[in-house]
Amino acid sequence: MIVNSLINCLIKRRLFPLINRSSIYKNPISYPYQKQTFYSSKNLFTSDINQFINLQATFPSRTHTCGDLRSSHVNQRVVLSGWSQRIRKFSPELIFLPIRDSYGTTQLVYRSSKSSDDASLILQEKLSQLSAESVICIEGVVAQRPKETINKNMLTGEIEVEIEKLYCLNPAYTLPFFPFDKKLSNEETRLRHRYIDLRRDILQNNLRKRSLVSWSIRDFLVNEGFVEIETPILFKSTPEGAREFIVPTRTKGLFYALTQSPQQYKQLLMAGGIDKYFQIAKCFRDEDLRADRQPEFTQIDLEMSFVKVDDIISLVEKMLVYVWKKVLGVDLTNKVPFQRMTFNEAMSKFGSDKPDTRYGMEIKDISSFISDLSDLSEYYAECLVIKNGATLLSKKEIESLKSLNNPSEDSETKCEFHMIRDNKLNSWFFDSHILKQSSNLYDSFTKEFHIEIGDLVIMNKRKKNLVRSWTLLGRIRSQIITLLQLKDKLSISPLEYNFLWIESFPLFTRVETNKLTSTHHPFTAPLPEDIELLFKDPEQVRGQSYDLVLNGVEIGGGSVRIHSPKLQSMIFSEILKLSNEEIIGFEHLVNALGYGCPPHGGIALGFDRLLAVMCETKSIKDVIAFPKTASGNDITVSSPSKVSKEILEEYGIQLI
Amino acid sequence: MIVNSLINCLIKRRLFPLINRSSIYKNPISYPYQKQTFYSSKNLFTSDINQFINLQATFPSRTHTCGDLRSSHVNQRVVLSGWSQRIRKFSPELIFLPIRDSYGTTQLVYRSSKSSDDASLILQEKLSQLSAESVICIEGVVAQRPKETINKNMLTGEIEVEIEKLYCLNPAYTLPFFPFDKKLSNEETRLRHRYIDLRRDILQNNLRKRSLVSWSIRDFLVNEGFVEIETPILFKSTPEGAREFIVPTRTKGLFYALTQSPQQYKQLLMAGGIDKYFQIAKCFRDEDLRADRQPEFTQIDLEMSFVKVDDIISLVEKMLVYVWKKVLGVDLTNKVPFQRMTFNEAMSKFGSDKPDTRYGMEIKDISSFISDLSDLSEYYAECLVIKNGATLLSKKEIESLKSLNNPSEDSETKCEFHMIRDNKLNSWFFDSHILKQSSNLYDSFTKEFHIEIGDLVIMNKRKKNLVRSWTLLGRIRSQIITLLQLKDKLSISPLEYNFLWIESFPLFTRVETNKLTSTHHPFTAPLPEDIELLFKDPEQVRGQSYDLVLNGVEIGGGSVRIHSPKLQSMIFSEILKLSNEEIIGFEHLVNALGYGCPPHGGIALGFDRLLAVMCETKSIKDVIAFPKTASGNDITVSSPSKVSKEILEEYGIQLI
Repeated sequence: MIVNSLINCLIKRRLFPLINRSSIYKNPISYPYQKQTFYSSKNLFTSDINQFINLQATFPSRTHTCGDLRSSHVNQRVVLSGWSQRIRKFSPELIFLPIRDSYGTTQLVYRSSKSSDDASLILQEKLSQLSAESVICIEGVVAQRPKETINKNMLTGEIEVEIEKLYCLNPAYTLPFFPFDKKLSNEETRLRHRYIDLRRDILQNNLRKRSLVSWSIRDFLVNEGFVEIETPILFKSTPEGAREFIVPTRTKGLFYALTQSPQQYKQLLMAGGIDKYFQIAKCFRDEDLRADRQPEFTQIDLEMSFVKVDDIISLVEKMLVYVWKKVLGVDLTNKVPFQRMTFNEAMSKFGSDKPDTRYGMEIKDISSFISDLSDLSEYYAECLVIKNGATLLSKKEIESLKSLNNPSEDSETKCEFHMIRDNKLNSWFFDSHILKQSSNLYDSFTKEFHIEIGDLVIMNKRKKNLVRSWTLLGRIRSQIITLLQLKDKLSISPLEYNFLWIESFPLFTRVETNKLTSTHHPFTAPLPEDIELLFKDPEQVRGQSYDLVLNGVEIGGGSVRIHSPKLQSMIFSEILKLSNEEIIGFEHLVNALGYGCPPHGGIALGFDRLLAVMCETKSIKDVIAFPKTASGNDITVSSPSKVSKEILEEYGIQLI
Repeated sequence: MIVNSLINCLIKRRLFPLINRSSIYKNPISYPYQKQTFYSSKNLFTSDINQFINLQATFPSRTHTCGDLRSSHVNQRVVLSGWSQRIRKFSPELIFLPIRDSYGTTQLVYRSSKSSDDASLILQEKLSQLSAESVICIEGVVAQRPKETINKNMLTGEIEVEIEKLYCLNPAYTLPFFPFDKKLSNEETRLRHRYIDLRRDILQNNLRKRSLVSWSIRDFLVNEGFVEIETPILFKSTPEGAREFIVPTRTKGLFYALTQSPQQYKQLLMAGGIDKYFQIAKCFRDEDLRADRQPEFTQIDLEMSFVKVDDIISLVEKMLVYVWKKVLGVDLTNKVPFQRMTFNEAMSKFGSDKPDTRYGMEIKDISSFISDLSDLSEYYAECLVIKNGATLLSKKEIESLKSLNNPSEDSETKCEFHMIRDNKLNSWFFDSHILKQSSNLYDSFTKEFHIEIGDLVIMNKRKKNLVRSWTLLGRIRSQIITLLQLKDKLSISPLEYNFLWIESFPLFTRVETNKLTSTHHPFTAPLPEDIELLFKDPEQVRGQSYDLVLNGVEIGGGSVRIHSPKLQSMIFSEILKLSNEEIIGFEHLVNALGYGCPPHGGIALGFDRLLAVMCETKSIKDVIAFPKTASGNDITVSSPSKVSKEILEEYGIQLI
């Protein structure tokens, strides 16, 4: 209960008060950016020394933060420190200056009538010279605001502080942009000066939320008996897959690789008798970046011994209920257990393995209506009905949908688009190349799928065995949702959280006639009921695997792993047909299974993506302190950069 | 209070019960290591399929852990899972088998008299075939042990479980070593099979302690209002210093560098208005490894705005008091405030900037006794008196000390060794080249330093301005302490925690006649009283810096930073005389100071070293799940390794 109330207090004090800060900047002025050349001429050093002393050490410590003061503090002497906002000078005798820190904003006021001595005049001049975003410290006395100036939108809106002494701790040069301007500066400028952008309420809130989420997750897992263990980041190059960063060592020809996930280490920990492991782990992947990808990203990684799929799923559900309650104050209890769907069902109903189920619009099976039923051994026929498509979607939008409509891996032909118009009520059905042309079938089709005038019917015949995580029709469905959302024809509360487990992914994908690869990674255990298929029809074998999807975003995935060294070896050699070299690369893991490794399974959740949903943003950049651009640059510090030939030589490498 | 009792419960349940597990292995048998070749011949697949099904999924879930059961559970039906220990077969009818998991050990017993049907015979056979460290799951009934067999050293020692059903989930091959053998296998074997070594109680405890420590630190800091923020690991190559790992990118010629510390990012966060930041951060340094160094290591990194040295020091003290209490149950309250000492004082009294103050044996200033007082502008004379040195140290040991005694950076000559023997009572004084030969001085010297027969007096004249963290005499003192400890002539309780702050390190070190470098990093603020010296005699300028030392181990260090862009620029250009290119490398940081950066300071504590002290081990390898060897190899997974030419080409590099 104490932890509970503490977090609530943190949220109230640190997160919400910040939101109204920007209301102070009603009339932002523009700050033309000028590249600063900082001072380095020697002849002024001596005269500046006193200033440096002031700047470095001789200022009083704050007694309160800028979010603390209330009516109850009236007449108290206080010291505040923070950033000076835009001065409002009503006359030389009456100056208002809001001061901001991480916790809130307080109104400072200077009234010369009160003490018009020399000190007061100096203070007045100092105040007038303050540039916005300068760092100051003030001494003053808390005063009640006159009734008419009380600001109920500010937590400190009941009071103001009559300023008596001002220390300018760090005068600010003209900023390239002003953090509280209503119109955001362009992204590149903001990333280059990320530290200015970070002063914005929304980013302050997101980073605080991130900190609270990781804290609550740890709190939950430690209380569940998990041990947090750091595994190495300097790992070895694995034959497994996606692109990995390599790190040269001083032993010529030998390289580390940065871990793409702690997968192998956590399995070794299970063999090491760590019953319940977790880690909030940095992972690295060198691949094309998109809005939801970064070259370094964070995973909530966990693994447990002696468990089955349901144990892991229910633990994760319990954890998310805990975190949502603690951090967002949202009760998910009535969503537990989360909806579960097999991979096959998801692909059939939504054409995606990470469907956003908030929108309905399910794809239907029309196999019984197709012209050549013998196709059904290899193909699957489906249709999507957009009710009132004629009204909801413009011609141009439908054209844009058709531009997506190209034969793809799962579909050799395009989807058929049929707009149901009154003037050709049933002709569309007989135009179709997919459907069997029969009046009876037309009747039962329109009845079964409630086809009415104005509806848009999209149909497809696709392959049964899927390779990718989207079908052609699934992509079109997703694009329709995007279009409708943009036009406000489909609205969903941002606070609606649709969690969904997708289970039983196929274990293997055929990449060439004679070559299978693992769909996820080669350690996933097959479903017990599919084990007999392993050596007969491996493409049909489903895994003890599960992905967690939240509002159409893949939040994470995991599986129960293979713990039998024999089964693992056989999959390597007989099904995946790995080369001897590749098998040797996994030898340590197979050995570990053979020296007493318990049954185990786990999951990895994408922390950045989870946070993005919790912070209601589409871009994970908004929940990362120093994100990299789409080209992998950290333009705040200008990274990556060149390295001298000498250093490369120390690592035994040279540029090609 | 809830958090408190919870942690206590964790400690009691998870840490301490493990300690007695090894008592079960009174008569370990040896397990000759044989490299396993795992099974991969196809003709046996079908017959093994049922076995795989059993192994992968069809076992009951445990009802209790192996540390849970007490007398109160007698007659309950339970399911336990864990590792089978060494079977003790008194007769075919009476078999004892301890089962172990992460939480404890439980005695299983098979008595055929109870049910001698077929099932029982099969069970008996299965039990007899079990290899040690096989993973099993059992169903059985809890029974009270006969009084004479109750084991008070085991938490489950009151009961045994009468085994009724056995599932062998993963039979173990013969292990390369047995985790509970009393004699440890050699380090390389244990590291290669780290997952077996990790089953040992001591490592299980260390990892759990590590998890609890990081959790308590987060608990403390979040409650103090800190925000945990992850900063990038893919950073840029910095001109600052020590060796850093480089990471090639797909843009030819551009490299990331792995962060050696989040220093620059945390300063940018301060400019970003994050008032109190912390992170338990992975850092990387490519340098020669020693017992207390790893290429990747973990730091408790924190930074605060608007603070001074004392604020940071007292926060860290409060944090350590909290952690010691929570994790070790040790109350450090009466040690607060920790002892503080300037760098100069530490070097004079102990000849080290990380002295172990538990041993006394202070070095004394003998400047007033030296022959040429004009030397004192440049030199400092000192002596160390080892009481009863003649008895405590053998001739051989003294010779070994003299082998350390070579002129070094701080000392152009060797130290003088004088054993005070009765037959040449004052001759030693007159033999000295350092001391002024005068009977008066001899008398006052022996009086001041209580010189008696049998004492060993070691004297030196060293340079005043020190470059390294040890003086020659300091090294000798440290070696004497090691020798005396080895002989049990100097004993210190391992539970004695001597915390010590070393403050006011010199800011700059002269590396060449015309070249100064920063002693720590170039962002440390000078002491206010030394600012005037900056452009007169920079070598005399001390910083607002502090190191934390615990029992002679440097646990961490930090400083108040420079927040004035002018001061920082001037130090770069006028004192350190950086090249333009180097200055441009810091431009983003100086810019950040100029756009409204508050005064700030912080500290980074070495998490691995802190843990090593808390776990009473000298090697940080004992507190890291998968440590690297002294040559930087992770021999558990065989990293680093070769990378193909094609991959190197993708990164625009080739081997020289």
